[in-house]
Formats: sequence, C-alpha cells, structure tokens
Amino acid sequence: MSAITTLSIATSGRGLTEITDQVAAAVSHARLDEGLCTLFVQHTSASLVIQENADPAVCRDLEAYFQQLVPEDSGLWTHTAEGPDDMPAHVRSALTQSNLSIPILSGRLMLGTWQGIYLWEHRRRGSARRVVVHAK
Amino acid sequence: MSAITTLSIATSGRGLTEITDQVAAAVSHARLDEGLCTLFVQHTSASLVIQENADPAVCRDLEAYFQQLVPEDSGLWTHTAEGPDDMPAHVRSALTQSNLSIPILSGRLMLGTWQGIYLWEHRRRGSARRVVVHAK
Amino acid sequence: MSAITTLSIATSGRGLTEITDQVAAAVSHARLDEGLCTLFVQHTSASLVIQENADPAVCRDLEAYFQQLVPEDSGLWTHTAEGPDDMPAHVRSALTQSNLSIPILSGRLMLGTWQGIYLWEHRRRGSARRVVVHAK
Repeated sequence: MSAITTLSIATSGRGLTEITDQVAAAVSHARLDEGLCTLFVQHTSASLVIQENADPAVCRDLEAYFQQLVPEDSGLWTHTAEGPDDMPAHVRSALTQSNLSIPILSGRLMLGTWQGIYLWEHRRRGSARRVVVHAK
Repeated sequence: MSAITTLSIATSGRGLTEITDQVAAAVSHARLDEGLCTLFVQHTSASLVIQENADPAVCRDLEAYFQQLVPEDSGLWTHTAEGPDDMPAHVRSALTQSNLSIPILSGRLMLGTWQGIYLWEHRRRGSARRVVVHAK
Repeated sequence: MSAITTLSIATSGRGLTEITDQVAAAVSHARLDEGLCTLFVQHTSASLVIQENADPAVCRDLEAYFQQLVPEDSGLWTHTAEGPDDMPAHVRSALTQSNLSIPILSGRLMLGTWQGIYLWEHRRRGSARRVVVHAK
C-alpha cells in the first residue's frame, strides 16, 4: 500500500481552513500503529500551520495580523503580474511553512489537546489546493 | 522498541530554552546508526527553532525582536480571553515552527558546529511543555 | 546504501539560490520509488524555503521584504560581535525554516508545477553552506 495520499482542499479566499479530519482519515487508511505523518502543500501562495482549534477568533486574528505584516501596498513589490495579492502571498508562505510533520501513536496523530492542522490560503480568491500526505 | 519519546520541558516565561541534550539522549536511546529525528511540540503558544548556542545574546535578541514584531497592544486582537499575551503567542508560533527534522548519522544528530535545538516559550508565565521526539 | 548526502552550496551574499537540481540528483541516487526527502541546513544564518521558480522577481522581492522586516539598525541587537548583518541573519533564519520535507513518488520529488527549493543566504558575504539531504 502506498504511504502517499493527495488531498484536494477547496478554499474561499484568504484565511485558514482546518484539515485535521481529512489528514486523520488519510492516516487511518495507512493502518499504522506508530509512525510519522508529513504534509506538503504543492503551492507557494498557500501554507500549512498548526494552530488552536478551540476559538475561531484565533484564525481571524492570525489573518488580520498577516495582512498588516505583509501589506499589498508596501511599495516593495516588482512581481505584480499576477495581481497585488500575489507577492504578499509568497511572503506569507515563506513566513509560515510548506510542510508539517506529526508523529503517529496507536494509529492516531499525536496532536495536543487544542491543536488543529490548517491550510492557510494567502490569495484573495480561493482555489483548489493540493496537500500531499505521507504516512509511514 | 518504540521510535517515540515524549519530553516534558519546564519553561519560566517568554524566551528560548535549549533542549539539545534531552533530544540527543532520546536519539541515543533509539540506538540508530542512521536515521531522521523529528520533533513536534504539542502546543500552539510555544514553538521549536534551531539557533546559535555559542552566545546567549542571540536568544535574548530573538526574544526582544519578536516582542516588538508581535506587540500585545497591536489593537488587532479579538482573542483576548486567555490574556493579552495569548494571541501574540499564537502568532509567534505561526511565524516559527511546530516541528523540526534533523538527520542522524553514526548515532548522532547532524547539527552544525554552533547549532542548538530550542523550545521557544511564547507565554509570559512558564509551564510544562510537551515535545514529542520521533527517531527512526 | 546511505540515505544521507551532504551538499555544499556556494552563495554570494544575501538572497535565494535555487538548489532543486542538486536535491533531485541526490534523490535520484537513492533509487527510491516512494519515500520522503528531508533537507536540513547546518547553519543558523541561512535557511531553506520552497518558492516560485518561474519569475526571478519573486526571490528579489522576498529578499527586499526581509531586509525591511529585520533591519540592521533596529537598535535591538546586542549580539554584534560578528557584524551588523549577523543578528538579522539569525532572526531571518528563525522566521523561515532550517528543514524541509518533500514526499517522493515514482522516484521524483512531488513539487508543484512552479515550486523550487531554495537555500536562503542571510549574511552579506557569501560562503559555502552545507545542506544535508535524507531520502528514504
């Protein structure tokens, strides 16, 4: 059986989408007792992050902070052909992560009590984002 | 033998705590000649980072920079129920890493000459932080 | 056969150097059908990042943004013995990544269409940087 699954995640604009359930399902299919789950996003204007999944305000505040930290009108951008939100999206991707690794024990992701796995869309318009799951 | 060990690291407030020795001990117990060590922190207000362990001023300057980069009084935070330092802690965690992976050769972590592994506490008060070590 | 290769990458000052071809060659030597490639940089003033490799302006804009985000004359730095660009280099390294993991399928890195692997030099002068490749 392959250790690799590819998820397609629909996003609807800038912000975080929780994907813990989809990743947990892929890990469950791998039927591992113990192992390591590695996620990789195949885009440079979206990223992956572990964050608190108890209060939705956390994700909204993260998005608000990143919009202020990496403004569209910074005066720095020369890569503008794909729109004013594209270069900020690349920077936001560099400031976060393209990959995550989470140990697996007793067949389950070893996430902390309040941790969720998020795909962070950095473009204004949403799209379908591919996240590769490697569990072994 | 299990590839997984969980470390409990006591922190005493915002700042970096070196955990290289604890991680090296866990790797040593795994008795691997060659492999990969992956660390995962089970919290969203603490993170992991590889930094210079020669001059302690590096860690102090990192902490000072992050306090300025992600201020408590930014006017942005709506997630405030857990205190003014909680949302900045989540942002600082997103800006750094929840996991690290370091190759193992001849039974030892392949760290560079001046590299140390650090747990970065982002809350004002310290606590006991769990770091999962997967070595295989 | 060892799963580990060490690359030496020459840099010529602050900025991103694409290393996709060198990493792909190391993965190719490992003769894996399916697996995981993990990269680790053995320095704390250089880092690794996945970015767009279609338009070179993306890398220039990333470098310009980081120079502004982490200025040499911030007034914060006490670790100055190695030059005014050294502490900003450590911060830039903390804000990006020391390691990357990319799944391998059919013997190839599962990079997205426009993704490249970059070594990011954060010091003014270039040097030879070691990147460990673990493919298994």
